Amino acid sequence: MHVDLLNSAQSAHTASLLHQHAPLVHCMTNDVVQTFTANVLLAVGASPAMVIDAGEAAQFAALAGALLVNVGTLTHSRALAMRAAVDSANRAETPWTLDPVAVGALTLRSDFCRELLRLTPSAIRGNASEIRALAGESLGGRGVDTTDTAAAALPAAQKLARESGAIVAVTGEVDYITDGERTLAANGGAALMTRIVGTGCALSAVVAASCALPGDRLLNVAGACLLMKHAGQRAAEGRGPGSFTPAFLDALYAMHGEVAA
Amino acid sequence: MHVDLLNSAQSAHTASLLHQHAPLVHCMTNDVVQTFTANVLLAVGASPAMVIDAGEAAQFAALAGALLVNVGTLTHSRALAMRAAVDSANRAETPWTLDPVAVGALTLRSDFCRELLRLTPSAIRGNASEIRALAGESLGGRGVDTTDTAAAALPAAQKLARESGAIVAVTGEVDYITDGERTLAANGGAALMTRIVGTGCALSAVVAASCALPGDRLLNVAGACLLMKHAGQRAAEGRGPGSFTPAFLDALYAMHGEVAA
Amino acid sequence: MHVDLLNSAQSAHTASLLHQHAPLVHCMTNDVVQTFTANVLLAVGASPAMVIDAGEAAQFAALAGALLVNVGTLTHSRALAMRAAVDSANRAETPWTLDPVAVGALTLRSDFCRELLRLTPSAIRGNASEIRALAGESLGGRGVDTTDTAAAALPAAQKLARESGAIVAVTGEVDYITDGERTLAANGGAALMTRIVGTGCALSAVVAASCALPGDRLLNVAGACLLMKHAGQRAAEGRGPGSFTPAFLDALYAMHGEVAA
Repeated sequence: MHVDLLNSAQSAHTASLLHQHAPLVHCMTNDVVQTFTANVLLAVGASPAMVIDAGEAAQFAALAGALLVNVGTLTHSRALAMRAAVDSANRAETPWTLDPVAVGALTLRSDFCRELLRLTPSAIRGNASEIRALAGESLGGRGVDTTDTAAAALPAAQKLARESGAIVAVTGEVDYITDGERTLAANGGAALMTRIVGTGCALSAVVAASCALPGDRLLNVAGACLLMKHAGQRAAEGRGPGSFTPAFLDALYAMHGEVAA
Repeated sequence: MHVDLLNSAQSAHTASLLHQHAPLVHCMTNDVVQTFTANVLLAVGASPAMVIDAGEAAQFAALAGALLVNVGTLTHSRALAMRAAVDSANRAETPWTLDPVAVGALTLRSDFCRELLRLTPSAIRGNASEIRALAGESLGGRGVDTTDTAAAALPAAQKLARESGAIVAVTGEVDYITDGERTLAANGGAALMTRIVGTGCALSAVVAASCALPGDRLLNVAGACLLMKHAGQRAAEGRGPGSFTPAFLDALYAMHGEVAA
Repeated sequence: MHVDLLNSAQSAHTASLLHQHAPLVHCMTNDVVQTFTANVLLAVGASPAMVIDAGEAAQFAALAGALLVNVGTLTHSRALAMRAAVDSANRAETPWTLDPVAVGALTLRSDFCRELLRLTPSAIRGNASEIRALAGESLGGRGVDTTDTAAAALPAAQKLARESGAIVAVTGEVDYITDGERTLAANGGAALMTRIVGTGCALSAVVAASCALPGDRLLNVAGACLLMKHAGQRAAEGRGPGSFTPAFLDALYAMHGEVAA
């Protein structure tokens, strides 16, 4: 299995494109990570908007540059609204990204994610347990945490990419980004990132934003993953999980300036 | 058109009144800004409470010193609960403030905000696109962001104030606060504030709190706007969007001490 | 009335157990404190998961190590989901903790909390007004704030513990933790903690996590209270409410390292 290691020029390029295009990202995400997700998108130059009523979500998904669907705190009524938004996104050719949080053991989200898989997502971002469960290989992890390594889930990610047509990012200590044919790896990050809620969910939002950019989508998604790893690595140095968050947003915000310099 | 520039004595006065009266603010606000809104209210000496069930919201709006209604993540059931709270607030003479987030292109919130306009809000706080859309002049901005300057929206703000009876604050690089007759301007702030989610929504909560204070409501609302601009300006100096948030809350918290000294 | 003062060895012991057992905590909590609650649990070594649909919540409560029910932003549908989770937790012998936010004057939550009291909670954590209201002694505080001291509510806490079978923690300037027979007191903390939203709610989540630990539950819950007081005291030194939050999470995260050293 051939995997190309991504170099940091790609994350710089993605950072630059995000600032230049400032995609408007319609986020339908879970209750826990709303603020952090919005602040991460703002820090990378994108523009977040959370619209959740089914009727409004359908209207907005057609206006937005990208849509994010994250099932972390799914309910029946949110699933209906998300479905309406995805249908509208597809009609308007708005790219949409799925974050299948904790898919596997829980029935409502597992059924819903399987339904969404047939609706041509542009990208899917999950941890190893989620990607394996979504590909039909396992029953998922422990709560929202993974019990596998990303490398172990790479075959599942490649299969999922081929079957769904989506770019699949399976993230962990190393991130793998694949379209089923080509596979890229992004190194970096920090173990501390698993001690702050929402780093994965926020990455999915940046992946969603990157799907609104021109150019090679696989490279753009991979660049988004690497951008977050770089900022996380810088922010984690000598810090605890509380001081990490401000430093992480500052680092993301500074990425573009450094690129332009 | 005559506009008086607010001087910093007014924000000091408002800060002092907020600490002295510690208004209990019933916040019915969007999912994204709940924590930041609560922490901003606590930092300025007010007491936030989020109560959202229709029955409880009606009970609580009658007990609270002020009510905030923010339609950022509106749903049909939340609209019903907000309507129950507004009706109860009006019966109890609790002042209530409207933040018409992203009003214009989205149907549910636009219809609901028009309905609320007839229910005698004490104050309305929005960006230029929102105020123009609410006044019937345009179809709103780009997602939650404005595409106009506050100055361009001032005539709309004045018309809206006259028609609704509310103090209207149209905020941006400069904030304008008007009752339809008198208009005040608040300078300051920092461009960085647009890169942190919820600064506008939190301002609306402080505006709501300021409506519970004794004295001239136009001056109190204007003082609330200036207070937030001052804290934002101080917090933005040399910082990115992540370190801004802690510094902003610290600066708000320090305002009162400095006033008292 | 005999009260034993807790010494800091107990909080070190609890911190160590939390890191060792890493309990998976199913949080059904209010909209305002989700992120902070999750980050506090992660900082102490536990693993949070927010699952809110009634069907999924019943599934997840049986898999989790502990369940937290916080009624801060209760609605009818959330009450149904919480009830389903509590019933499932009881069948699976998952310990569950109640945080009766603002119980007293508001009808829906007051009726629901009384119903929950009959379902054998393992622990209850509230401020003085909430504990007195839950014990049937008063009508509650001012919004979410208490109007009593914890000491004044201690008899109510002891009565509530005897009647419900739960460990009851009534927290304030001093925390009292009681099983109705033995009573422990935890000193420390900082007044600044009342100026940051969610410190009490996050404590309830750590109390919930501590109920999943082996050993004496009264001591484990008391250790959780003391752990939060120690971290809060350290974080508050020389800081405002904005810089408190990162410092608090860092301090919680560092507790275990210091214990192990």
